Amino acid sequence: MKQWVYLFNEVNAVEKVVGGDWEGVRALLGGKGANLAEMTRLGIPVPPGFTITTEACNAYLAGGNKFPEGLWDQVLVALKETEKASGKKFGGSENPLLVSCRSGAKFSMPGMMDTVLNIGLNDQTAAAMVKLTNNERFVYDSYRRLVQMFGAVVLEMPDEAFEDVLIEFKAEKKAKSDTDLTAEDLKELTDMFKKVVRKHQGFDFPSDPMEQLKLAAEAVFRSWNGKRAVDYRNATKIDHNLGTAVNIQTMVFGNTGNDSATGVAFTRDPATGEKKMYGDYLLNAQGEDVVAGIRNTEKIQHLAKDMPEAYAQFLDITAKLEKHYKDMQDVEFTIENKHLYMLQTRNGKRTSRAAVKTAVDMVNEGLITKEEALRRVRPEDVDTLLHPQFSPETIKAAKKANQLFAVGVNASPGAAVGQVYFDADTTERMFKEHHQDVLMVRPFTKPDDVHGMLAAKGIVTSEGGATSHAAVVARQFGVPCVVGASSIRIDLDKRLMEVNGQVVHEGEWMSMDGTSGEVFIGKLKMTDAALEEQTDLMTLLTWADEICARPGLRKGPAGSPTTGLQVWTNADYPKDAVRARKYGAKGIGLCRTEHMFFEPQRLPVVQRMILAKTSEERTEALNELLPHQRDDFEGLFEAMTGLPVIIRLIDPPLHEFLPAASDLEAQIITSRVNEMAGYLLGKSEPKEIKDLEMVLEAVESLHESNPMMGMRGVRLSIAMPEIVEMQVRAIFEAACNVKLKGLEPKPEVMIPLTGHVNELKWVQPRLERIAKAVMEEKGVTELHYKFGTMIEIPRACVTADEIAEVAEFFSFGTNDLTQMTFGYSRDDAERNFLVTYVEQGILPKNPFQTIDFDGVGGLMKIAVEKGRTARPNLEVGICGEHGGDPESIEFCHTLGNNYVSCSPFRVPVARLAAAHAALKHAAK
Amino acid sequence: MKQWVYLFNEVNAVEKVVGGDWEGVRALLGGKGANLAEMTRLGIPVPPGFTITTEACNAYLAGGNKFPEGLWDQVLVALKETEKASGKKFGGSENPLLVSCRSGAKFSMPGMMDTVLNIGLNDQTAAAMVKLTNNERFVYDSYRRLVQMFGAVVLEMPDEAFEDVLIEFKAEKKAKSDTDLTAEDLKELTDMFKKVVRKHQGFDFPSDPMEQLKLAAEAVFRSWNGKRAVDYRNATKIDHNLGTAVNIQTMVFGNTGNDSATGVAFTRDPATGEKKMYGDYLLNAQGEDVVAGIRNTEKIQHLAKDMPEAYAQFLDITAKLEKHYKDMQDVEFTIENKHLYMLQTRNGKRTSRAAVKTAVDMVNEGLITKEEALRRVRPEDVDTLLHPQFSPETIKAAKKANQLFAVGVNASPGAAVGQVYFDADTTERMFKEHHQDVLMVRPFTKPDDVHGMLAAKGIVTSEGGATSHAAVVARQFGVPCVVGASSIRIDLDKRLMEVNGQVVHEGEWMSMDGTSGEVFIGKLKMTDAALEEQTDLMTLLTWADEICARPGLRKGPAGSPTTGLQVWTNADYPKDAVRARKYGAKGIGLCRTEHMFFEPQRLPVVQRMILAKTSEERTEALNELLPHQRDDFEGLFEAMTGLPVIIRLIDPPLHEFLPAASDLEAQIITSRVNEMAGYLLGKSEPKEIKDLEMVLEAVESLHESNPMMGMRGVRLSIAMPEIVEMQVRAIFEAACNVKLKGLEPKPEVMIPLTGHVNELKWVQPRLERIAKAVMEEKGVTELHYKFGTMIEIPRACVTADEIAEVAEFFSFGTNDLTQMTFGYSRDDAERNFLVTYVEQGILPKNPFQTIDFDGVGGLMKIAVEKGRTARPNLEVGICGEHGGDPESIEFCHTLGNNYVSCSPFRVPVARLAAAHAALKHAAK
Repeated sequence: MKQWVYLFNEVNAVEKVVGGDWEGVRALLGGKGANLAEMTRLGIPVPPGFTITTEACNAYLAGGNKFPEGLWDQVLVALKETEKASGKKFGGSENPLLVSCRSGAKFSMPGMMDTVLNIGLNDQTAAAMVKLTNNERFVYDSYRRLVQMFGAVVLEMPDEAFEDVLIEFKAEKKAKSDTDLTAEDLKELTDMFKKVVRKHQGFDFPSDPMEQLKLAAEAVFRSWNGKRAVDYRNATKIDHNLGTAVNIQTMVFGNTGNDSATGVAFTRDPATGEKKMYGDYLLNAQGEDVVAGIRNTEKIQHLAKDMPEAYAQFLDITAKLEKHYKDMQDVEFTIENKHLYMLQTRNGKRTSRAAVKTAVDMVNEGLITKEEALRRVRPEDVDTLLHPQFSPETIKAAKKANQLFAVGVNASPGAAVGQVYFDADTTERMFKEHHQDVLMVRPFTKPDDVHGMLAAKGIVTSEGGATSHAAVVARQFGVPCVVGASSIRIDLDKRLMEVNGQVVHEGEWMSMDGTSGEVFIGKLKMTDAALEEQTDLMTLLTWADEICARPGLRKGPAGSPTTGLQVWTNADYPKDAVRARKYGAKGIGLCRTEHMFFEPQRLPVVQRMILAKTSEERTEALNELLPHQRDDFEGLFEAMTGLPVIIRLIDPPLHEFLPAASDLEAQIITSRVNEMAGYLLGKSEPKEIKDLEMVLEAVESLHESNPMMGMRGVRLSIAMPEIVEMQVRAIFEAACNVKLKGLEPKPEVMIPLTGHVNELKWVQPRLERIAKAVMEEKGVTELHYKFGTMIEIPRACVTADEIAEVAEFFSFGTNDLTQMTFGYSRDDAERNFLVTYVEQGILPKNPFQTIDFDGVGGLMKIAVEKGRTARPNLEVGICGEHGGDPESIEFCHTLGNNYVSCSPFRVPVARLAAAHAALKHAAK
Repeated sequence: MKQWVYLFNEVNAVEKVVGGDWEGVRALLGGKGANLAEMTRLGIPVPPGFTITTEACNAYLAGGNKFPEGLWDQVLVALKETEKASGKKFGGSENPLLVSCRSGAKFSMPGMMDTVLNIGLNDQTAAAMVKLTNNERFVYDSYRRLVQMFGAVVLEMPDEAFEDVLIEFKAEKKAKSDTDLTAEDLKELTDMFKKVVRKHQGFDFPSDPMEQLKLAAEAVFRSWNGKRAVDYRNATKIDHNLGTAVNIQTMVFGNTGNDSATGVAFTRDPATGEKKMYGDYLLNAQGEDVVAGIRNTEKIQHLAKDMPEAYAQFLDITAKLEKHYKDMQDVEFTIENKHLYMLQTRNGKRTSRAAVKTAVDMVNEGLITKEEALRRVRPEDVDTLLHPQFSPETIKAAKKANQLFAVGVNASPGAAVGQVYFDADTTERMFKEHHQDVLMVRPFTKPDDVHGMLAAKGIVTSEGGATSHAAVVARQFGVPCVVGASSIRIDLDKRLMEVNGQVVHEGEWMSMDGTSGEVFIGKLKMTDAALEEQTDLMTLLTWADEICARPGLRKGPAGSPTTGLQVWTNADYPKDAVRARKYGAKGIGLCRTEHMFFEPQRLPVVQRMILAKTSEERTEALNELLPHQRDDFEGLFEAMTGLPVIIRLIDPPLHEFLPAASDLEAQIITSRVNEMAGYLLGKSEPKEIKDLEMVLEAVESLHESNPMMGMRGVRLSIAMPEIVEMQVRAIFEAACNVKLKGLEPKPEVMIPLTGHVNELKWVQPRLERIAKAVMEEKGVTELHYKFGTMIEIPRACVTADEIAEVAEFFSFGTNDLTQMTFGYSRDDAERNFLVTYVEQGILPKNPFQTIDFDGVGGLMKIAVEKGRTARPNLEVGICGEHGGDPESIEFCHTLGNNYVSCSPFRVPVARLAAAHAALKHAAK
């Protein structure tokens, strides 16, 4: 007979079953159950109880919602043991045992599944409890909570059914808060709640404790497949087959009076990572009061005053736990008549900022290694830390202009600006359908609200504390959040909110700062986060670079890199290069020269060049552009001295530099009308119609039915070599000038869109001759330079061996390569069918965001292998948008790339992702 | 010392040097030299002489136009031997030896390189010749020919320099033709020609025979790299490194009087293949008079009357040669004072019709095997035979309408219609720049005219016979040709031609029939050639099918085909299927269902379907289309009973079925104007503007920036499954209906544009359910059917193993696959850069015509290999336009394809190409 049930003190037995593996223990008992058992083993006071395994849950669900054979018998045995340990009796008339029934999956899913407390109470046991505790108020408070929770969770009744009764009852009793209700009131309320159950369900609230327990356990099992839980797992990529365990535990009571309390705490500040206890508690309350954020809580430090002994014990225990788990702990506790009980411990969820700080601090404290520290920070965390912020000046100005609306708890850092909405559905709709930047403002949030929170740029609540639902979820998803901004009064009927008569209607713009807890009226200007001021992050990224620089990390054919990936950047302007270098870029992987052509003072010259009728006219225009390009390149080479700078020669089709045909047609019509008007009025207007018509003709002659597969890249260079000849001259004049200043420019010239080696053979020698000629003119003899190509055409991948005979480096243009490999026109596809494909699971991911490993990746693999057979030390990189995507970066690591190149802001993210890839694959 | 020179009787020595290999002999001595030596060995009368090898030519050219060491000494020795054999002395004052100096490369390049006759004549030897022959007229005729030919060929003087003098001289002497000139006239002319040389060149015509010989040999060497020769080799794909040999041969004279003659002949009719001697001769003439087509010749059969003994000997010799070479021979001969000398033999160039007939006849005569017969016919020959012709009715009607303009010799068969031009340059320009169908009309053609002949759809000359330059070249390139249409008078100044006062100006339309020799005014209607009437071709293609059906031809992994390729066809309509089956197709590889949507009575329903606002409206329209589609499919299945029919589900983007946006806009404006006009006139017009605007809106919403990579194929089927569901229902209803008639339908349903296996997984099961449902409705239990996919997206190739898990067959759509693999939009690319790429050699071929073996082919190889690992007996075919291209067919053979599919007219071509591939690769 399979063992479905384990007592909390049986962790050794579990370890034996799963083979001593802590992950296995967590998988079988769930995170909560495993940690309760572990704390029991460590001698920490935990109320006795037992865990029904995740396997039992899976068997229950697979069997059509039936307990598997033997399960209930094992529960009864374990319950007996629990009665023994607690000295109480379940359903007993003298010293009755009450239990909680909580879910607990392998990976924490806070608030997503069900919990029922106070199981075992009925009229008889309640009377016995009153007799025993002499505290009628506490007993009936617990009893009415059981009925409400059982109704909502087990019987799936709407919360409002009870809440409406409660509110009316409190009004009748003139009670401001729950604590104003007397014992008699609560007893009356219990009866009223029971009537609500009967009215709603057609049957009585079950008074048999065993029936209560059985139904509650089943409800927890079923909640694994509840919509909230499924959505959450989809969002967080947790496997749907894990199942949840059920923890049945002796109830201890934080609501027996003012000698009791209940609270939650983090061993370090989960928002900042600061090493100080961070949490809330409530005297005379049960746990859900704290978590739900319904009552305003006390800071954990106040407990030193309220209950100094218990607090001292609490600090001891939490210190022990942090040391044991080597990570920041998120604990729940209850003090029952001055006795401290730990109800839960787990690794605490934290903001990105806290993740970085705790990781770095723990290395400095000697708790963990640098590698472990790197593993604990996700690339998304780095991204979050580089999110925009409001500058101090902006804040100051906003305050001066009386834009400050409210201040709350700074629950999840980062700035956000958006239009406010007051419920999750509207928030989500405005984001998805109308593509608005949205802020969600709520009194407090519940698990039902998560879809709105995910859609929002920021979250504000008027109630709740730093460990309330809103705060926990927002931190996890990196959404800026302010909670407990209690001056805000939200009127859901009128769809507005108000502070001291200042009104904001739904849909109006607000700004919020999750770092300071401030909420502003209107749109504040956001500025970039300065990496250089985030010393912990800088430290961590240095460690990441150290990991990647280790030789022997990768094994490949001779000439391929044995260290990890370098991170380069895509930068078109010197200022981008400066920033990227500050952010740790080790080179420029892509400088798009055509952006320089679009500058307002240059565009007319570019257009003149395109419209030139002869090669001479064209060259004349190009000669005008040359000094501009040379200046740009000098700036880049100076900023990146000593590091490689890959400059891509002109790529886009020429029509992109000309006005659209429809604009020209409109201008021609306007000019005609003006001309006619001028004629009628006897005036003469400048005759520009012919010019416009000439441009229109050129635009029409350049029209292509599929421009993405048309006259661009190297095809253009072969048809019209004058442009790239000018560009190469500019590059080498700039490099020589910079070299002569004593700096170390390393230009690498990249030819785009190569599909056949003969294209390179045609164009590359022409350009190399120019490079050599310029160096001779300038008297520069030693210059590190390379000529290479983008690999962005499937044919280039398949014939990469031929291409590598000529090209000295490859840079994957994964945007185009993805377009051609799938036959998807990016703009059309994303609009027309790609979103549907991803939603329906036809494609696992959007291949424009994460490299399609099998298809596009398959071609890349062929390209690298073939390329390195022809040229073993071939430099291989990637400069498409995938260069900043962590999964794609890992793929590039396994592919044998030398580097990935991404936008300057993604460089720190990519550095961490590269280290993760190195750690993951070196370990294998 | 290398042997650069071989006497004609040294063929055994040559064989020893090259290892007994006849190809080696031809490579070293050139075709002409090898055959002269071979004839000498066979005891056939050949004037003595020797050959300077192709190696000597290459050494001369490589050495900067200098004879290699030892060459001239060897020539002198061979000349001595020749003197001995002929009993004459070169430059001798008693019995002087005259020699010819002719080029002769490994592969025949008729008229492309230089020839000099009568070398050795000067004032002294001429006098000796006169004394010896007592025929002053003959001697000075030869002498003036030498000076003219030497001037033109060796000294590279323009022909006109001599021609102008000759014409003026003839006018002065009132001579109509050259034969009217007396001996004295010719002597005078010789002197005048020498003065022309001095005037033009500044030095005297060289009187030293040795100098003449040396300069002539060098001229022949240099002519290998002359423009004409290089162009010809480019057009015929002859290697530029082969070099030409030089044949020095004792002159024999057809121009010594009426006991002498010269001629050329084929052992079978080179136009029809008929087994009868075919050729021309001239009494009292030298060879070039016949070949150049300047004088109208006699048919060879007349020689029986003129010189019966020589003719009998000639027939003996030619019969012996044909038997020896096992092929039709093209010979040159001269009769000098009743003595017959053979000057050349070679395998005769022939029309496609003759190629087929001689090949089949020779098998029947037991001369060659079927395999050899197949090798002798090129796929282009089959294509030519299926070229359009004029029907007898068309010809009859044209004659009745007095459109017959002239009749000449039917030199190269086939009909052509085009605008006439009178010189090669204009002909070429009108074709290349203005894309006209052009006919070239000339008095006669010279090698300089080849570029015009290649551009022309047909060629007409007013002079020359069936072996004239125009006739030979036209036959070789399969261009219809009429020669010697002597009633035509061409006025090059006025740019017109005229027959009996009927005038045709340059640029006007003409029609010509190279099969009958008739030339017509205006455009005649062309009709297709009926394969079934060409019994020889039918026989040959049956042999081709036999070859391909042999098992063990190919070795591949288990499940892959071991026989050769089958040829299937692309057919959208039952009439195409009927024709293709007659042409030998073994199945339909592609039926494009959307063509059925464009039929005038169906298009409105299709548009209604596209514009439908609801799925119900759409289904309603589709229900109207279903019977039409079913009828089409029934016709196909009936025509192809017993053979597979692959039907491709809807592929193109929907906007293709709607009017263009610009048309709609124009209509809207017109309607607005009408409305306003109606309003002004007090009338009311039907208000269709709203309808038009609605369609315009739909068209605009369907607009894509790169439609080739957009919403088409399976992507459309997933977004709008109703269409393909209807199509599959129609296919299976049709198949069941045909099956119930007792026939054997074999439908194979093809899903286009698959890029990811999940697309198939989504759509294919839905369709298979419909197929099964229809079979159940119809009570049909046994039906051979398959579901499979196009492979036309690079990603599909790379992930073909996954795709083959679902798809039961692959059909390469090489058009799209080429587009995506190269990133070329076909329409744009061919217009913008592809032509340049091919011209500049960046691409060896247009990849849309012949599969790009390395790139696209590389992906196809991956696809076949991966596909067959997942499904060993995977049926693999190709249905792009490459399916009819011989080189691509050979590639498909090596790839392991089961079949190629091409348009019905290409099926016979493909059958032969498939046999060629099988023969070529089975031999390896």
